[in-house]
Amino acid sequence: MKNNQKPSPMPTHKYRPFHEQISVDLPDRTWPDARISKAPRWCAVDLRDGNQALIDPMSPERKRVMFDMLVRMGYKEIEVGFPSASQTDFDFVRSLIDDDVIPDDVTIQVLTQCREHLIRRTYESIAGAKQAIVHLYNSTSVLQRDVVFRSDKQGIIDIALNGARLCKQMESTVPGTTVYYEYSPESYTGTELEFAVEICNQVLEVLEPTAERNVIINLPATVEMATPNVYADSIEWMNRHLSHRDNVILSLHPHNDRGTAIAAAELGYMAGADRIEGCLFGNGERTGNVDLVALGINLFTQGIDPQIDFSDIDEIKRTAEYCNQLAVHERSPWAGDLVFTAFSGSHQDAIKKGFEAMSVDAASRGVSTEDLAWAVPYLPVDPKDLGRSYEAVIRVNSQSGKGGVAYLLKSDRGMELPRRLQIEFSSVVQSRTDSEGGEVTSDEIWRIFRDEYLPADTGTGKWGRFELNGLRTSSNVDGGVEIDVTLRDGDAVDQHTAHGNGPIAAFLSVMNEHGVEVTLYDYVEHALSASGDASAAAYVELHVGDSRLWGVGVDGDISVASLKAIISAVNRGLRADTPSPQLVSTTA
Amino acid sequence: MKNNQKPSPMPTHKYRPFHEQISVDLPDRTWPDARISKAPRWCAVDLRDGNQALIDPMSPERKRVMFDMLVRMGYKEIEVGFPSASQTDFDFVRSLIDDDVIPDDVTIQVLTQCREHLIRRTYESIAGAKQAIVHLYNSTSVLQRDVVFRSDKQGIIDIALNGARLCKQMESTVPGTTVYYEYSPESYTGTELEFAVEICNQVLEVLEPTAERNVIINLPATVEMATPNVYADSIEWMNRHLSHRDNVILSLHPHNDRGTAIAAAELGYMAGADRIEGCLFGNGERTGNVDLVALGINLFTQGIDPQIDFSDIDEIKRTAEYCNQLAVHERSPWAGDLVFTAFSGSHQDAIKKGFEAMSVDAASRGVSTEDLAWAVPYLPVDPKDLGRSYEAVIRVNSQSGKGGVAYLLKSDRGMELPRRLQIEFSSVVQSRTDSEGGEVTSDEIWRIFRDEYLPADTGTGKWGRFELNGLRTSSNVDGGVEIDVTLRDGDAVDQHTAHGNGPIAAFLSVMNEHGVEVTLYDYVEHALSASGDASAAAYVELHVGDSRLWGVGVDGDISVASLKAIISAVNRGLRADTPSPQLVSTTA
Repeated sequence: MKNNQKPSPMPTHKYRPFHEQISVDLPDRTWPDARISKAPRWCAVDLRDGNQALIDPMSPERKRVMFDMLVRMGYKEIEVGFPSASQTDFDFVRSLIDDDVIPDDVTIQVLTQCREHLIRRTYESIAGAKQAIVHLYNSTSVLQRDVVFRSDKQGIIDIALNGARLCKQMESTVPGTTVYYEYSPESYTGTELEFAVEICNQVLEVLEPTAERNVIINLPATVEMATPNVYADSIEWMNRHLSHRDNVILSLHPHNDRGTAIAAAELGYMAGADRIEGCLFGNGERTGNVDLVALGINLFTQGIDPQIDFSDIDEIKRTAEYCNQLAVHERSPWAGDLVFTAFSGSHQDAIKKGFEAMSVDAASRGVSTEDLAWAVPYLPVDPKDLGRSYEAVIRVNSQSGKGGVAYLLKSDRGMELPRRLQIEFSSVVQSRTDSEGGEVTSDEIWRIFRDEYLPADTGTGKWGRFELNGLRTSSNVDGGVEIDVTLRDGDAVDQHTAHGNGPIAAFLSVMNEHGVEVTLYDYVEHALSASGDASAAAYVELHVGDSRLWGVGVDGDISVASLKAIISAVNRGLRADTPSPQLVSTTA
Repeated sequence: MKNNQKPSPMPTHKYRPFHEQISVDLPDRTWPDARISKAPRWCAVDLRDGNQALIDPMSPERKRVMFDMLVRMGYKEIEVGFPSASQTDFDFVRSLIDDDVIPDDVTIQVLTQCREHLIRRTYESIAGAKQAIVHLYNSTSVLQRDVVFRSDKQGIIDIALNGARLCKQMESTVPGTTVYYEYSPESYTGTELEFAVEICNQVLEVLEPTAERNVIINLPATVEMATPNVYADSIEWMNRHLSHRDNVILSLHPHNDRGTAIAAAELGYMAGADRIEGCLFGNGERTGNVDLVALGINLFTQGIDPQIDFSDIDEIKRTAEYCNQLAVHERSPWAGDLVFTAFSGSHQDAIKKGFEAMSVDAASRGVSTEDLAWAVPYLPVDPKDLGRSYEAVIRVNSQSGKGGVAYLLKSDRGMELPRRLQIEFSSVVQSRTDSEGGEVTSDEIWRIFRDEYLPADTGTGKWGRFELNGLRTSSNVDGGVEIDVTLRDGDAVDQHTAHGNGPIAAFLSVMNEHGVEVTLYDYVEHALSASGDASAAAYVELHVGDSRLWGVGVDGDISVASLKAIISAVNRGLRADTPSPQLVSTTA
């Protein structure tokens, strides 16, 4: 069978393979036989490396939200900024210390170049903290020595040593703070290993690691330049050649240029590292830092406690999206909207049989399925352990192959459904069309959509328990709002006044007064069309009782649309036939 | 330095490590010493595995667009569907053959389970093709044998052998077609290696591989269950134990559950595989298939010809996004909007020095920089080789830390700038504020934005050469449109009638008549607000002359807004001071 592939026009001559640039020779490597058996020390660098790579860096408020979440999840070492490089970073570090929000068992980390005025400023930023890691770096690669610093090796070593010496002197300016050190030979992957270990070992002589005050040596794949086994070889080599090894914490900081940062972190950890720096969902310069969520949950699926709480992955995702103003991709490991979704009939069948076998097994042993080893085909983790659910999506093709349900709702009705609502609605359509054959028209889809999510025109009363009859909103000076709502609850109509950060928060408290416990998960809105009636559509994902489901509201006023959406979700949640039978849950 | 990490509440007891499930023992592995020196055989499965995992599967038209692009890029083996599983897949395979659009050197591949009626239907689908790969699979894992098939090993082997025997018989029904075979023990990663090799070798006895008719043995990580070195070990083990090895093409099909599919493919290829199946940008079930774009460009950056043309990565990305209706993430390797963007001052400085050093080096040798080995810090590839450019983004903080430029434009003006326009506009803001200090108000940002992208209110005439004075649009029955445009060009005003698929295409031809060569790269629109004047904003990215840049249009009519956006980009492109000085290009 002939290989018909042809040479491409790509200018391959411009590039040299990594092994012609840097030699990593370790034929007696041992890491491929190693197995990971416990979590590494984690360091979350979202507030520094992650934040540095955003078009719109985080505001102080968003930074605090990120910091608080990282602490709640269980991270104990958090790089909070590069305080000597920007006033906003400096102010943020000060605010953490001055507002006393750093738990005693959490150590903040601050980055600085090995330059005198930056180091001095860095110590100003940490004064008053109980403990802090001063993270010192300078660039060591062949390329940066040649074109950026125009310096020989000794000049580069001197930069590092002068920085380390000044740091030691500066300790006296922060008498109340226990200072730990981290040193990074930046652009490590482009550095000869012999030189990397030489500069690290000389820095260690200055920093004098002890059993009580370990020093972190961090070996960043500032640019990922080779397959991840090469990084692992280099880490094992360094692990063998670093001095003071017992008092050194060997740390990894992989970037994802080649898309193999997760592998580089795992193989490097197997090769002898102790610690991994990364960002939630792989935020960071260019293609990002290594993804701490993937690394942590990868451990979990092997029965290893990540020592980080990922039990509400959607909350973590929403918060990261809010802070970074960057979406997490639908296929992002363990967290994307599509990763617990099965479209193929054979996958759905196998998953169903897996759930059934676990139920039978549990019953025969007289235990809960939670006590059994997880064993469901195509689902490497129980979505429930991450606060998610499994969804079997049976897709419906529209007539004449013009596209699917979401496409037709968008093109014909201007409704842009959020991805998870698309998944939910696919099931609704399927449950309504099972008996009518596979293909449905755009009109039919719209009828099913209105029937399920919007107040029925028909006056059949099927719509549900609540209806919004009137809304007046007034903003307060303090940024909150007051709403006056006229609400039908069954046959009764009453009037409420409520307060909140916004109309949605205020209205959720009204729902509460009516005995309906509601938690908001997601909120999306858009204008419906550019011409004619200026209508808006709002979509909310709520937890109502035991169900998590979507509601939709359409109105000329976006505030009214959002409250209608809440009512839509609540009415659906209270309806007897919700959730739809096709929404297979993991408890089924 | 104490490790303060605490046990998490995650139910770790539910999971067993991979090595307790499947034993992969290969202490004398050789792959860690291997180096990749040539491209593997590629097989693109976007139209099957990728399409199968979309909420809205591709329409026939979108499928054809994907097929044509894969062919143009250089893929010679393309899995085009699962024709026996759905009528739409069957019809699509038939249309490729009946419309005679498959080049002679391209082999289509069709998937089928090992079931009689499905195999018969599969041969119906390929009749008339010059050649085709029939891809036969059945599931072999411990878990699927237990809970799905409730069968012993012999039963599973019989399924495969009966399927293979029927395939051989069915060849006589397609006399004009050279049939090749691929066999996949599906869920291979959950299968004992001894059983995997046994079933493959027995299938090979039936399929009788020869030098002229190799058989493909494909070993899918249907679910990615362990670190990628374990997959590589298993591939090397299989490579040693497969019979007929000289006439077998060993193929990989990694999924990305753990986020290490790219590494698994690379290490597995080093371990002796010949061929890799995957999807562009990693589309596919759950977290997706391995990303063919990352794999190919990873080779390129090592000086190895991928035998695939990635020289216009944005066109590939746009087409994939159109076909899949899924965005490629901003940090997707080699292709994301943010991967050639530097935000940090020290990175920007190093990159600048790298460009300068290359220019000096080229000049001193009397050659072009294109003849030199690429050597720029933080840019592992020349963006130009992928049709991209490097952008140094100097961010501007607004007053009182309320957010950056894009945030304020969205919250205060309702303008939701596409990511790449955000990057471009950051540079514009920076160039206007350099002399005025770092922080700017929201009003100032808006003034700069209008001044740069929208017709000036001031009547200074600075706006530019073209202005739209009127538009009439009428739709034809065939789906095209006719536009009547009143256009000011300098001081002259004239009238044009033009045709196109839509108003934008029609208007680009008008621009052409005025001697302006324009190529459209991207188009985004949104309604501006849900109340009051129903205004729409349109954003276009154009190639005008030697520049690639954005234009913005705002109008009550979305068609008018889009034409205004084109004029905005064209006028900017023709202005003397465009592109902005801060937009550092790779040729600078």
